[in-house]
Amino acid sequence: MQDFAAKDPGFAERVRASFAQQRIMALLGAQLTRIEPSLCEIALPHRLDLTQQDGLFHAGALGTIADSAGGYAALTLMPAGSRVLSVEYRLHFLAPGDGERAVATGKVVRAGRTLTVCELEVKVEKAGLSRSCAWGSQTLIGLPERPGSQ
Amino acid sequence: MQDFAAKDPGFAERVRASFAQQRIMALLGAQLTRIEPSLCEIALPHRLDLTQQDGLFHAGALGTIADSAGGYAALTLMPAGSRVLSVEYRLHFLAPGDGERAVATGKVVRAGRTLTVCELEVKVEKAGLSRSCAWGSQTLIGLPERPGSQ
Amino acid sequence: MQDFAAKDPGFAERVRASFAQQRIMALLGAQLTRIEPSLCEIALPHRLDLTQQDGLFHAGALGTIADSAGGYAALTLMPAGSRVLSVEYRLHFLAPGDGERAVATGKVVRAGRTLTVCELEVKVEKAGLSRSCAWGSQTLIGLPERPGSQ
Amino acid sequence: MQDFAAKDPGFAERVRASFAQQRIMALLGAQLTRIEPSLCEIALPHRLDLTQQDGLFHAGALGTIADSAGGYAALTLMPAGSRVLSVEYRLHFLAPGDGERAVATGKVVRAGRTLTVCELEVKVEKAGLSRSCAWGSQTLIGLPERPGSQ
Repeated sequence: MQDFAAKDPGFAERVRASFAQQRIMALLGAQLTRIEPSLCEIALPHRLDLTQQDGLFHAGALGTIADSAGGYAALTLMPAGSRVLSVEYRLHFLAPGDGERAVATGKVVRAGRTLTVCELEVKVEKAGLSRSCAWGSQTLIGLPERPGSQ
Repeated sequence: MQDFAAKDPGFAERVRASFAQQRIMALLGAQLTRIEPSLCEIALPHRLDLTQQDGLFHAGALGTIADSAGGYAALTLMPAGSRVLSVEYRLHFLAPGDGERAVATGKVVRAGRTLTVCELEVKVEKAGLSRSCAWGSQTLIGLPERPGSQ
Repeated sequence: MQDFAAKDPGFAERVRASFAQQRIMALLGAQLTRIEPSLCEIALPHRLDLTQQDGLFHAGALGTIADSAGGYAALTLMPAGSRVLSVEYRLHFLAPGDGERAVATGKVVRAGRTLTVCELEVKVEKAGLSRSCAWGSQTLIGLPERPGSQ
Repeated sequence: MQDFAAKDPGFAERVRASFAQQRIMALLGAQLTRIEPSLCEIALPHRLDLTQQDGLFHAGALGTIADSAGGYAALTLMPAGSRVLSVEYRLHFLAPGDGERAVATGKVVRAGRTLTVCELEVKVEKAGLSRSCAWGSQTLIGLPERPGSQ
């Protein structure tokens, strides 16, 4: 994979500000834990109200933090004022979402003029061990800032 | 696509009971609105705490109800006592998640001995119009009931 | 799904001319059998040199005609002079590729300014019956004509 | 990712024998260039009859070798006599298929009892440089040997 550099030195603040506005992150209790050029990590502590019928993390909760992690990984490489939208994503579920915390990582694989491709991974941590639980990929499109948006 | 029949006449109660145990559905405010052999529909009224940075449904919230809709569509065709797991899913995002309510539908496309494939769609309703917002597909695996589970 | 209209009345000739230049289609023996606004169909008669180890159509041969069918379905809706590239595609394999002929259909699901999403399906025909064998979806990007291309 | 060991010491011969029976590989001119536990590599020298309308490798040709590379990567870890089928695969196209040779690698990411997940990558080589051109993932199912097959 390529080596990626951020064009906008304020990329981390930009991502943090956007994350703070994603109100679903507060609902789920998700935290932005790492932000670097081409990479973003979001952690989700286990809560019973995030689970499917067996008390494990629901695939959709994992998909939610994975989708945002990929989106913010893409955003780190874009000029100030850009917006990014998920075009599509897919996730393989490799192991049950069984753990005290899930950590989603989005990594840019290709940053093109219009489209960005990210690798997504979600690990679950249990009793000191971390295990890959979901893995996939995502296509994103970068858009210039909307007229009228602040 | 094939015509599908349920093997277990109690399929709808089974799905409702499992849905009631998916605690993330209560957190999001999702409702099971339709359950038929090979088909399941889950609705999600808009709330600000389900949104991304622009106040639209977060892709992950839509993915969560889509994943469950597909899982329950698959479960309608399985024998009593079966469990079903998502192997993978993917969603295209066709339009912004802009509406008062999102409705996810999972439909079985192929029901094999081990694997089931579903089509997933999420529509958003706004001012009396319904628009396709996300569309994709999912692979699921059916498992016999776990020893010791009720 | 939307109703789609072709902007360029010469869309069918354009697709036929491009298909004739896809030299892999001649190698495989694939034929362009239907071209309409938002839809393209490509047929592939069975030959032993298109098969995997069991004498069935190789998944890759089916993927090849599916990818082109989707690309040309997208191209029917673009202005004269446009080019189209596959951004990504995915196929589920629903049944063995067992038949005398495979027929791939690409249908546009969403035609945006930059990106097009297609549904892909491959049916195999055997003894007068047609059966869905592969099914999936594809994202494409439309590009203006390259300077210097004819 | 896990460390994988082959259960059957004859895995490489098994893969080579199956590859030799995939007649489409001979049609395309594909060569099995590397086979190790959990990994398979297939190379495809450029020929004009493998191309799309611009003389570049057709996405389907790359998909064909990627699908087989993933299938054989999965097969290396299975007991003697097993068969493997692609359940689904997806590929992102990261760069034009512009080169003298394409090399597809399939790597096992997860080897379960029933299902295997592989990472797929296709690089193109041009003027001494190798560039990632396609990247994706695949789900496969392992089947016991068919009664009556040798």
